[in-house]
Amino acid sequence: MSQSSFGKKFVVTTWGESHGKALGVVVDGCPAGLPLTEADIQIFLDRRRPGQNRYTTSRKEGDEVEILSGVFEGKTTGAPISMIVYNKDQRSRDYGNIAYTYRPGHADFGFDQKYGFRDYRGGGRSSGRETIGRVAAGAIAQKILGQLGITFCAYAKSIGPVEIQTFHPEVIKENSFYMPNMVAAEKASHYLEQCMKDMDSSGGVIECRINGVPAGLGDPVFGKLDAMFAQALMSIGAVKAVEVGDGVKVSKLNGSTDNDGFHIENGVISKLSNHAGGILGGISDGGEIILRAHIKPTASIAQAQQTITKDGENVTINIKGRHDPVIVPRAVVVVESMAALALVDALFCNMTARMDRITEFYKKK
Amino acid sequence: MSQSSFGKKFVVTTWGESHGKALGVVVDGCPAGLPLTEADIQIFLDRRRPGQNRYTTSRKEGDEVEILSGVFEGKTTGAPISMIVYNKDQRSRDYGNIAYTYRPGHADFGFDQKYGFRDYRGGGRSSGRETIGRVAAGAIAQKILGQLGITFCAYAKSIGPVEIQTFHPEVIKENSFYMPNMVAAEKASHYLEQCMKDMDSSGGVIECRINGVPAGLGDPVFGKLDAMFAQALMSIGAVKAVEVGDGVKVSKLNGSTDNDGFHIENGVISKLSNHAGGILGGISDGGEIILRAHIKPTASIAQAQQTITKDGENVTINIKGRHDPVIVPRAVVVVESMAALALVDALFCNMTARMDRITEFYKKK
Amino acid sequence: MSQSSFGKKFVVTTWGESHGKALGVVVDGCPAGLPLTEADIQIFLDRRRPGQNRYTTSRKEGDEVEILSGVFEGKTTGAPISMIVYNKDQRSRDYGNIAYTYRPGHADFGFDQKYGFRDYRGGGRSSGRETIGRVAAGAIAQKILGQLGITFCAYAKSIGPVEIQTFHPEVIKENSFYMPNMVAAEKASHYLEQCMKDMDSSGGVIECRINGVPAGLGDPVFGKLDAMFAQALMSIGAVKAVEVGDGVKVSKLNGSTDNDGFHIENGVISKLSNHAGGILGGISDGGEIILRAHIKPTASIAQAQQTITKDGENVTINIKGRHDPVIVPRAVVVVESMAALALVDALFCNMTARMDRITEFYKKK
Amino acid sequence: MSQSSFGKKFVVTTWGESHGKALGVVVDGCPAGLPLTEADIQIFLDRRRPGQNRYTTSRKEGDEVEILSGVFEGKTTGAPISMIVYNKDQRSRDYGNIAYTYRPGHADFGFDQKYGFRDYRGGGRSSGRETIGRVAAGAIAQKILGQLGITFCAYAKSIGPVEIQTFHPEVIKENSFYMPNMVAAEKASHYLEQCMKDMDSSGGVIECRINGVPAGLGDPVFGKLDAMFAQALMSIGAVKAVEVGDGVKVSKLNGSTDNDGFHIENGVISKLSNHAGGILGGISDGGEIILRAHIKPTASIAQAQQTITKDGENVTINIKGRHDPVIVPRAVVVVESMAALALVDALFCNMTARMDRITEFYKKK
Repeated sequence: MSQSSFGKKFVVTTWGESHGKALGVVVDGCPAGLPLTEADIQIFLDRRRPGQNRYTTSRKEGDEVEILSGVFEGKTTGAPISMIVYNKDQRSRDYGNIAYTYRPGHADFGFDQKYGFRDYRGGGRSSGRETIGRVAAGAIAQKILGQLGITFCAYAKSIGPVEIQTFHPEVIKENSFYMPNMVAAEKASHYLEQCMKDMDSSGGVIECRINGVPAGLGDPVFGKLDAMFAQALMSIGAVKAVEVGDGVKVSKLNGSTDNDGFHIENGVISKLSNHAGGILGGISDGGEIILRAHIKPTASIAQAQQTITKDGENVTINIKGRHDPVIVPRAVVVVESMAALALVDALFCNMTARMDRITEFYKKK
Repeated sequence: MSQSSFGKKFVVTTWGESHGKALGVVVDGCPAGLPLTEADIQIFLDRRRPGQNRYTTSRKEGDEVEILSGVFEGKTTGAPISMIVYNKDQRSRDYGNIAYTYRPGHADFGFDQKYGFRDYRGGGRSSGRETIGRVAAGAIAQKILGQLGITFCAYAKSIGPVEIQTFHPEVIKENSFYMPNMVAAEKASHYLEQCMKDMDSSGGVIECRINGVPAGLGDPVFGKLDAMFAQALMSIGAVKAVEVGDGVKVSKLNGSTDNDGFHIENGVISKLSNHAGGILGGISDGGEIILRAHIKPTASIAQAQQTITKDGENVTINIKGRHDPVIVPRAVVVVESMAALALVDALFCNMTARMDRITEFYKKK
Repeated sequence: MSQSSFGKKFVVTTWGESHGKALGVVVDGCPAGLPLTEADIQIFLDRRRPGQNRYTTSRKEGDEVEILSGVFEGKTTGAPISMIVYNKDQRSRDYGNIAYTYRPGHADFGFDQKYGFRDYRGGGRSSGRETIGRVAAGAIAQKILGQLGITFCAYAKSIGPVEIQTFHPEVIKENSFYMPNMVAAEKASHYLEQCMKDMDSSGGVIECRINGVPAGLGDPVFGKLDAMFAQALMSIGAVKAVEVGDGVKVSKLNGSTDNDGFHIENGVISKLSNHAGGILGGISDGGEIILRAHIKPTASIAQAQQTITKDGENVTINIKGRHDPVIVPRAVVVVESMAALALVDALFCNMTARMDRITEFYKKK
Repeated sequence: MSQSSFGKKFVVTTWGESHGKALGVVVDGCPAGLPLTEADIQIFLDRRRPGQNRYTTSRKEGDEVEILSGVFEGKTTGAPISMIVYNKDQRSRDYGNIAYTYRPGHADFGFDQKYGFRDYRGGGRSSGRETIGRVAAGAIAQKILGQLGITFCAYAKSIGPVEIQTFHPEVIKENSFYMPNMVAAEKASHYLEQCMKDMDSSGGVIECRINGVPAGLGDPVFGKLDAMFAQALMSIGAVKAVEVGDGVKVSKLNGSTDNDGFHIENGVISKLSNHAGGILGGISDGGEIILRAHIKPTASIAQAQQTITKDGENVTINIKGRHDPVIVPRAVVVVESMAALALVDALFCNMTARMDRITEFYKKK
């Protein structure tokens, strides 16, 4: 395998390269009877589409999705759902100069070591365009989760040094960066202008909050819910750290501060705080799930960088082409999608955890 | 499944509870012909054994491992290797008081929600004792990797607010905390004494460095090497964040700073820096691999905490019993073991990446 | 992996060799809340135990099972269930003469080619004793299935040329061969006496019928219910053919004869015949499931046979030792167990097939 | 999952329905560097294409395959290979009458029980057209295996009562039935004419022989090579029995007849007979691998049959439409493809069986 699949019960397999004919995904394990149209998918894909504004690559791709199988009379049938997006604007000439030179910060060198050669056109399989399949699949996952009352909210928490101070979810889609704060977005805009002038790029942080998750999801050992989220988020290119709840801060806390007390009022159980980010011992505790992915700056920059060629010569490279100065804004929906994929899988895996519920399930049927 | 297995080719399945008869692991997929004795395993288990010093639980467990299968005439046979450690000092009376009360910071509530009831003795399946199986399996993984020139160095990077300043790997095993700095260890000792006086606990950070990893390991999409490490490390109880290389810092860096240039000298390829922590685009780049796990403070503290009972009453709980004031020191070898398990799996998965090498492999045979 | 695991949701991992310290199994994915004791398991193990009569090996093994984990207060907890059986009568001297010689009909040659060497004591990992783990796990599977009204009936359909004519399930456990016909059992006894006199061995056929299986289990493509049964049964040593329903006969039938018409009466749907053996297009149709496994004669015979040594010399071998003249009787419960494992897995996998049932499952919860 | 994937290392995921827009497959885990063009695939697809002669459905499908990803500059890159075949002649009107009626011998009833409704157009996901993806993937598997000297020969061994007597592989592609005997093919033709006159259908047997397989493939327990073949072949619609080597005959043989002696001459090891069909204890023994699949008669026949409707009424159905009177000829290449998929997977899985070979693999690299 080249491990292009994710999930155990809701199994997603992506395929395609940046400059190939098309990209796509097969979703195997979607339950039958879910209403589904291409519009349900497109709305998510539009959030990661290039060319949304001056901070995203100018590559012209409508990224229109087509459903090829698994849907009949407007509903999923239980058969695999194959979705495809054709590449339209794959200007290979942009990338000719990197065929023989290893770009710093990219997987070029590793690819050649692993496979003996590589599809050098625009990152090939390692391109951010691969995430089209993830987002298309994630849209289905979110539709399923939505029917169970589970909702997602992902956004840019910081762009470079610019961090949001107050949280206004209603403005997330009102700015180019998907930040929940317009002042921060304005500052981020200025920061990025400077980066672009400097032929440089910026990193940032994406946060994802999930509400309505029932307690009890996740398995106690290797299948911990947070372990699944960690794999899911770290599998996104450019993510170098993943946090759950208080994340890196916990190492400096004491137990008396970090522990979340439980409380009951009128029969409703809640926690007095949520340092844990909704997951204890790998199992959801009914609280809001809070995840963060730390994104490195775009590796492709126009500044001169030292590197080597395939033939082993030291050279200097300046990377031209159409690159986002920051990956964060378009990656917000990717983080959200991966979180949704991990969660729907945990939800499905959980259905066989108790004998009484299995008996009830089959008795009724 | 309850997802008690880890790995695709080197498959590790742990079993057992804190206060059950025994704990163990089955390693399926260990190649034949590896010299292996119980001593190879014991040396790793001794590093996580309780009772090493006053900062670890006083539970008395020799944690002596027995190999039950898969080894013949001193070598592995290719058959599954079953290993067992019997529990000796499972004083269940310590835990009677928590049978009906949900401990803050623990998975008790989630367990009851998931399974309808739980083995409340000492955390049951969620106990740190479960990691005995991981460490025993990790010992085999490290033995395999050692034969290929791959070496591990894991240590406590910080205990609460005490962070190491200079790195002295030779003293890691010279102090109770597995810190690579004796001054820091001394400070950590003072800090923990205060925590214990306060009936409180501390978190910390574990770092793991891996050398000798060939470039080309890891798969480009969901099976990224760092994604596998992230799942592996986050699957350890109490880990709330995982970093690779510069980790959380990258979000504030620019591409010109974060990118590692490549360089060649006398035919040897190296990188001019290692912000990436040895992994680019999910594939190893030949550099040192650097991982960090952020550990939350021990959840079991003697201070009064608010919580609820199984029957839905608000109560106050003081957790007695034998608990480590900080998990970090004993978890160092667990982090190392999980990293080794993820790496050996990536190494095995990688063997079918190239047609020329497959042909050569079978031609020779 | 050496593929010692079976199942996707109810995952069974066996370990151990014929002459090692012990054999066992880890069952991961058993739902919580199933009442379970060692007696539930032992009753199945006793059906495959050696020394039941003069047609089984005289090796003295009580095969007493011990549950080491996953059960608390008499019920499964959802944690992996580890079970162990210690070897008592491993007389290695019996097998010394085959260390360097490849026994015809056995995997000795293949093992050496694959692994470079082998545990030659009594077949090692390839021994029939490996099935102890399968039967122990199968006992749990049957307990689960029993709670859902699904029942198994397996028996010897033929021993060598002796085939049952009429079916009397009540006598299956009344004779040494687990045949549902006392006359046939008598004839089989005579036939085997002659085989033993001739220093030869016999094959036979095992049939397994399963009642109460709801329609709708199995997945339409690679996970067809019959495909899962086929893998399950063919994975038993000595099975060389697997049939479902009319099996090999269908190739000579016409559609008008082979098709089973559907019929409804008083709201109850049934089939007018059951050529299909309860599975259509890989999905259960509500009818009785009928499986057959064809077992080859015991490979170990005392007659002289031509073979080669490890060093490449042609030699003659006479295999001494304690061997069953026919494998069939003790394999009956193994076939039944593997069928149960495949079925419980299909049952669990099926629970996420429909959105309406998933919604109902989580709404209630 | 709906289990639309096959394989552990060479992972094949098929998608698509009989009357949907398209069908296809994603092959994940194909090694990099394999020369591959659409012509390599098409030659296999043409063997299963409809409309080859009067014994196959008159549905008009060119079944032209397009490779969408994973191939660059004429070679595989290690990335997933996505292949697509568009449906052209999906006359849905043919199938309208079966939307509410369960066809005997088909999975219609099971589908509705499982999923709540179904894509009733031409069998939907259960259509033989799903095998397009299997054959396309199998073509790649055979190309890989061919480079290692492994060759396949599959053919119709019998059509209804007409069995081949002598074996002439050179004529397999010279007749409509892919029989290795022209006289038998002539007889089969007469037999089928009669079936068609009778508005009836016929079954048959497909045999597949594989040469050049190295000894040592397959894993000793659940991953036995024959178990993998059994799942692979039984997962083909209409297969009701799978045999290896002497298959069902072994149950009547004695050990002295069934065992294959080993022999060495001039350093070359061979077997004196091949009752085992090239597999002993689940591991290849270096001999020719012999597999047989028993195919039931086409379920769709024009004769009146009793059945029920979705609403629970007893009715009579006559199935019109374009149906093959016998599935066998077009299924020959499907059996061959599934055998190739199982074998390439076993070959890849086997590469980590020995420590010495792993060391050598990575030392060289």
